[in-house]
Amino acid sequence: MILNSFNLNALTCYIDKKFLPLESAGIPATDLLVQRGYGIFDYLRVANNKPLFLEDHLDRFYNSAAIMRLDILETREEVIKIIYQLIERNNLAYSGIRLIIGGGDSTDGYQITAPRLLILQQPLTAPPEAMPLKGIKLASYEFQRQLWEVKTTDYLMAIWLQPWMKSQNADDILYHQSGIIRECPRSNFFMIKDKTLITPATHMLKGITRKNIISIALANDIKIEERAITIEELKTAQEAFISSSTKRIIPVSQIDDYLLPTINDQSLSFKIFNLLMEKELHY
Amino acid sequence: MILNSFNLNALTCYIDKKFLPLESAGIPATDLLVQRGYGIFDYLRVANNKPLFLEDHLDRFYNSAAIMRLDILETREEVIKIIYQLIERNNLAYSGIRLIIGGGDSTDGYQITAPRLLILQQPLTAPPEAMPLKGIKLASYEFQRQLWEVKTTDYLMAIWLQPWMKSQNADDILYHQSGIIRECPRSNFFMIKDKTLITPATHMLKGITRKNIISIALANDIKIEERAITIEELKTAQEAFISSSTKRIIPVSQIDDYLLPTINDQSLSFKIFNLLMEKELHY
Repeated sequence: MILNSFNLNALTCYIDKKFLPLESAGIPATDLLVQRGYGIFDYLRVANNKPLFLEDHLDRFYNSAAIMRLDILETREEVIKIIYQLIERNNLAYSGIRLIIGGGDSTDGYQITAPRLLILQQPLTAPPEAMPLKGIKLASYEFQRQLWEVKTTDYLMAIWLQPWMKSQNADDILYHQSGIIRECPRSNFFMIKDKTLITPATHMLKGITRKNIISIALANDIKIEERAITIEELKTAQEAFISSSTKRIIPVSQIDDYLLPTINDQSLSFKIFNLLMEKELHY
Repeated sequence: MILNSFNLNALTCYIDKKFLPLESAGIPATDLLVQRGYGIFDYLRVANNKPLFLEDHLDRFYNSAAIMRLDILETREEVIKIIYQLIERNNLAYSGIRLIIGGGDSTDGYQITAPRLLILQQPLTAPPEAMPLKGIKLASYEFQRQLWEVKTTDYLMAIWLQPWMKSQNADDILYHQSGIIRECPRSNFFMIKDKTLITPATHMLKGITRKNIISIALANDIKIEERAITIEELKTAQEAFISSSTKRIIPVSQIDDYLLPTINDQSLSFKIFNLLMEKELHY
């Protein structure tokens, strides 16, 4: 899919109760989303014009909004309708849907008012249909996301760390706090040891792909543990991968200086990827 | 000053190289400021049409931008000119000027591009010309701002904590990390012990009013220490106050359950307030 083959700015989006072309869609400078970074979002993948795991994403979006005291003025049924209308209008068979909501206009710059809902559809390259066997390198960095159970729009640290990450020749960052693994900025972390899948239990955003992987493991007699993982324990991992809605599963071949064993089509990660593909195709 | 006596939305602001009425000024939904909360700002007070301590605020704004790798496309001279043009157009003798800059439009939602500069002028009630003797209550909360030396637009925790703060019958929040005092969400903290002014040295945003207070202390033989203050040490404070550009100095009468001694016009805080007023009048 070639991203620049059509006019991105002509895509229809939904902002504050209206359908508008992206190029004329702006958020007022008075919204707390702009002035105070007070906002949440969710992001889901559209494949063959189907919004994948939509209900799970909406559950999380409404849950994030509740924790942040943002009253979404549109009902859940209305949001679903808007998403399908965007898919129809934009005709982007493979794409991403981003829902964003902020604190609304505030005269004192602090009080939450009527939140504005934005729903954007943007082109997205579909992830590979087979798991890449070549893994990526993660660089560990001490950081704990604030309000970690909420999908906030706060990616200050993630973006700020990009040059540092590149200086480490790494492909992504692995946050930890006092040596306890948390998450990557846009994905969850899993390791495999003694045929057991292990993933952090808390202090990170619970991804929808993470949720799917856990339910796949439970349904397929793959042992799964949600518990603390230390940086030290990573050296005992036989396999490791990161998961996200846009990437599905990407194997990890190196964390800092530690090289993980090579994986192949007999690896457990490979099996989990295929089960995830199947779950996606049958959604 | 009555805030609602004129149409706020008709005020002129500067967005992305243009002067526009606030009501038609929006940030594209594709800007990293909206999508990723990646932005910085500064805020200064205008009194009698004079932007107070403008050079200090611009020094800090350009410094924040440099740390965040945001290239402000306007030169410092241009920014100054825009600020004076806004003051002339809006004719708001007492007001606040907010400069905001974000990461710009990003196709991958991660790479910083050409940052958009926004300059807004908004009505502001002038702070009292004499120090209020009635102090406020602070409630301490464990939190460390990320990228603490930068005035980012990240006020997630501050806004999220408002109901908690009210449940504590407090007027503001005092952040600490492992018992070491940092700052309030929008002001710096000072305590006075044995005629010495003490304020945290690091891990907080260095306010322009804080800077002015330190230079006033140095010029007037008031002992000043920039060093770590523990929550425990607060109980030995004879006076305490918070400082900010909009509030100048507000005395603190209570921190959590601890009541501070009452202050009067012989208190050192009172003297510092008057010296600060003088500095402002002679700016």
